[in-house]
Amino acid sequence: MGVIVQKYGGSSLADVEKIMRVANRIVDTKKEGNKVVAIVSAMGDTTDSLIELASGITEYPPKREMDRLLSTGEQISMSLLAMAIQSLGENAVSLTGPQAGIITDSSHSKAKIVRVMSNRLQKELEGDNIIIVAGFQGETEFHDIATLGRGGSDTSAVSIAAALDADLCEIFTDVDGVYSCDPRIVENAKKLEAVSYDEMLELSILGAKVLQSRAVEVAKTHDVEIHVRSSFNHNIGTIVKGEVSSMEHDGLITGIAHDFDVAKVVIFGVPDTPGTAAKILKALADANINIQMIVQSAQSGNINDIAFTCSTGDAKEAASILQEIANNIGAKAVVINEDIAKVSVVGAGMMTHSNIASRMFNTLGENNINIDLISTSEITISVTVGLEECKLAVKALADEFDLIYK
Amino acid sequence: MGVIVQKYGGSSLADVEKIMRVANRIVDTKKEGNKVVAIVSAMGDTTDSLIELASGITEYPPKREMDRLLSTGEQISMSLLAMAIQSLGENAVSLTGPQAGIITDSSHSKAKIVRVMSNRLQKELEGDNIIIVAGFQGETEFHDIATLGRGGSDTSAVSIAAALDADLCEIFTDVDGVYSCDPRIVENAKKLEAVSYDEMLELSILGAKVLQSRAVEVAKTHDVEIHVRSSFNHNIGTIVKGEVSSMEHDGLITGIAHDFDVAKVVIFGVPDTPGTAAKILKALADANINIQMIVQSAQSGNINDIAFTCSTGDAKEAASILQEIANNIGAKAVVINEDIAKVSVVGAGMMTHSNIASRMFNTLGENNINIDLISTSEITISVTVGLEECKLAVKALADEFDLIYK
Repeated sequence: MGVIVQKYGGSSLADVEKIMRVANRIVDTKKEGNKVVAIVSAMGDTTDSLIELASGITEYPPKREMDRLLSTGEQISMSLLAMAIQSLGENAVSLTGPQAGIITDSSHSKAKIVRVMSNRLQKELEGDNIIIVAGFQGETEFHDIATLGRGGSDTSAVSIAAALDADLCEIFTDVDGVYSCDPRIVENAKKLEAVSYDEMLELSILGAKVLQSRAVEVAKTHDVEIHVRSSFNHNIGTIVKGEVSSMEHDGLITGIAHDFDVAKVVIFGVPDTPGTAAKILKALADANINIQMIVQSAQSGNINDIAFTCSTGDAKEAASILQEIANNIGAKAVVINEDIAKVSVVGAGMMTHSNIASRMFNTLGENNINIDLISTSEITISVTVGLEECKLAVKALADEFDLIYK
Repeated sequence: MGVIVQKYGGSSLADVEKIMRVANRIVDTKKEGNKVVAIVSAMGDTTDSLIELASGITEYPPKREMDRLLSTGEQISMSLLAMAIQSLGENAVSLTGPQAGIITDSSHSKAKIVRVMSNRLQKELEGDNIIIVAGFQGETEFHDIATLGRGGSDTSAVSIAAALDADLCEIFTDVDGVYSCDPRIVENAKKLEAVSYDEMLELSILGAKVLQSRAVEVAKTHDVEIHVRSSFNHNIGTIVKGEVSSMEHDGLITGIAHDFDVAKVVIFGVPDTPGTAAKILKALADANINIQMIVQSAQSGNINDIAFTCSTGDAKEAASILQEIANNIGAKAVVINEDIAKVSVVGAGMMTHSNIASRMFNTLGENNINIDLISTSEITISVTVGLEECKLAVKALADEFDLIYK
């Protein structure tokens, strides 16, 4: 007898029939002798419909009210699912985020969970109830509802699993698990049996959007084992956990991530004086622009070029901030390139194997793919390539690192 | 500078355009120097759509979950209205029933407001915010949402007006006020300038469904003056208050109410022994059957007939309960008649004028309308007539008592 936390996404709850299917699955889990807490997203495209309603009222909806509006989506699906479970003869109770004791900070629309006060959850579990919790939401210290950002239900589920010291946290989605690379690009991409938190973070930040990164961070902090699997079948999916043994990995490399939403900004001819790079980075941070890869290259003597990547949406603002700095410090020019993509090779195995980078660059070279920026972390090597060469790069690397079922 | 509580019904908030119109009206009220609290119902037919969703899941949705589901309707309209007001440049904050401090008992789907803890409302008003409150809902002592029954937003509004000691409580609806009789039956029915709480209770219980009766009861208890008016124009509507001067009434009779949803149940040949009537009434009360008119008539010596009316939906259950009692006490028969309607003449004036009943019966007689049961209260005379004669009865009485613009 264990405590199992399950999370069902909106596509798994899109209509009455699918809600009944989820209800049956939850009841089965209960009948296997478990206590079950299920976290739900809004049905199908409810959230989009609510956003559309708000945009009919005002172009810039205030965030507190927007959170209040959007949070109703999960509350509708939670009530319906609780009804469905009761119609199958099991006790069920639905709880909103605030009722489930999810306390957040006050950053409406992207709130962070501060803690989970689990008394009510514990009480309902002791009363032999299946609990359905509205995901994506919590309560601020001002007793207002705040939402956790898109995909926030994953974080709700993992945080509740941590608070209840659950035996398992299952994230149900519309794919069979985490793939080593995007199956829409690489035919027969291997599904991963297991992946470590750190690898998952790299894969999810870099573009494989199966699990919200914050959910993985919370899971890592509290050592919550996550099982990502499909709600449409009973196949084993992918386990996300702290340490993955070599038995569970086929090769050195866990996955290939790619990101089309990336632009390069270069500031040319920066005088090489101490503090210049810091000044540039601070100006961007002050504007809330998240930068990713940073490369500084010596052009000649005391002049450098500084290049970095950011999301395409931030590129123009970043460039205009840099142009001002460039004028002040006497740099030559600021140039944007939006026709690029980022491709990353991710794997804990590379910590003990030194030839990954050379195999990667060699493979890209053999395919006539030009590498622009390069950056590395302990378990990742990322490069930027031309936008049009991205898919070829992913395919070639998946082949090289044995990530395809053959 | 006063505190004004306004309530807007679902038809006044049916789409984005109407929400903007309501927002403008609220902002105008604020700019006239008032503090404003607006209570809202769910947009248009949202509640019906949610009920339909639930009925797709299960035939008998559990009430707690149903309340949770339905309460999202008001929360959507409240958020959108708060956004709309902010887009017009005024501060606004939306509050759910629980956030507004509306505490109810635990009778899910027909909860009663126990009290209003007005601290948060007071705080937001002091912060110069327009407050938008989700009507129809409150919080039980178990921290669950409970709804107040159809039309419950009226009660939310009046209760909040009482708690804030508001200067005025405006109920906005899609008609111009309270009419002396149903305008769909009587052409040129007079609109009432003012009506007392007691008269309004008789009119609303008896079928003129403009204001939820519980809202009127709360208004009466706390002496809250209500202004029922249209949200689609700026006409003066109808004032509901404690004492209405004769200046404000055109005639002796305030209105004619009618009710099609009524059935008569008669138990014939009841032995006239003490406690028999009480036994019958208790059995019906135990089954939660609300009975209205009760008439006992002596048939002969020690045998009575007892007749009463109840809603059509309760008639069959009432009859079967009575049949059992009839068998026990040796009564002759139980008969149902569903082809009747109730017509009532309502007016505080009849307390001082004795000829109302005779004028009423005379008018019905002149129109060949047969009167069946009769019951009276201090300000009401009710009769049952054949279902098909009801409309004629209302028209004739409206004419007799001068309730038509001529």
